[in-house]
Amino acid sequence: MPNIFVALTHYPVVNKSGDIITSAVTNLDLHDISRAAKTYGVKNFYVVTPLKDQQVLAQRIIAHWIDGSGAVYNPARRRALETIKVVDSIADVVEDIRRIANQYPKTVATSARRYPSSIGCKKFRTILETERPHLLIFGTAWGLAEAFISEADYILEPIMGSTDYNHLSVRTAAGIILDRILGV
Amino acid sequence: MPNIFVALTHYPVVNKSGDIITSAVTNLDLHDISRAAKTYGVKNFYVVTPLKDQQVLAQRIIAHWIDGSGAVYNPARRRALETIKVVDSIADVVEDIRRIANQYPKTVATSARRYPSSIGCKKFRTILETERPHLLIFGTAWGLAEAFISEADYILEPIMGSTDYNHLSVRTAAGIILDRILGV
Repeated sequence: MPNIFVALTHYPVVNKSGDIITSAVTNLDLHDISRAAKTYGVKNFYVVTPLKDQQVLAQRIIAHWIDGSGAVYNPARRRALETIKVVDSIADVVEDIRRIANQYPKTVATSARRYPSSIGCKKFRTILETERPHLLIFGTAWGLAEAFISEADYILEPIMGSTDYNHLSVRTAAGIILDRILGV
Repeated sequence: MPNIFVALTHYPVVNKSGDIITSAVTNLDLHDISRAAKTYGVKNFYVVTPLKDQQVLAQRIIAHWIDGSGAVYNPARRRALETIKVVDSIADVVEDIRRIANQYPKTVATSARRYPSSIGCKKFRTILETERPHLLIFGTAWGLAEAFISEADYILEPIMGSTDYNHLSVRTAAGIILDRILGV
């Protein structure tokens, strides 16, 4: 199994104007990305928000599918949502992974923009073979804040299709990236 | 550009018990799949439902982003949602493609189950090179009805990750399949 963890963060991300904001939790982000994470053997899927009311909302959604009537209705969904941990910050994610993996993870930022240091999914596949833990980080809203991206150990190049249109949802981008780096 | 069209159908699909049902339209299906379709050069994305009230709902969502305040707020989203056509049935989709492409499309059903005749994405890539129009069909709810699948010209094999868990959302599965068959 690959030594990989995924985080979806709601801060620090930017809005349309480039201002740093905290975005709201989207129900289907939890479902779609946890299902993709489970499909590709990701160890945990961290949902990151510093807002307590948003943490409570995320936990309520998760509890419905893990302990509530959703767990009986759809056990497969339960298995996916069980991979989720709701936390305050990426710093907390990194500490949690250190506890689990006995080593700090390398961080990998994603962006719809290409940077001089961006690496492709093929390169990232070979990096994962080192077995060191890696944390793949997705941003909500208009994406991760620049300062945050520049602090990551790696930046993953954007998913380009066969056109110049690159406005995938974070749910779809996460699925495609996991398929490219972990698909058989 | 590939000669490919995508449909998301809400009938005939099955529920958890295997009964044939008509499912409800999900807002984020329209957004996520149209954005992926636009990214990979899909010509049209058909949203198929025989229910008039659901057609009205879908059209209201689309109109908000094409003609309403959404178009000003997010022009990139407009370009994606403009690829959507809301229609009654797959038969209507096939006729529309015949009008556009001057040829009936070959139909390609998707399923989370593998069939003896299922083909892989690599094989489908080479089939697309024939330049004949192809219609890739996704089902909502618990997937396309068996009788419908058996009538398609091709069945695409399910997306398997690196585990035995195969419960991706239709939004994520559509993105991954488009990347596998059209990605560069």
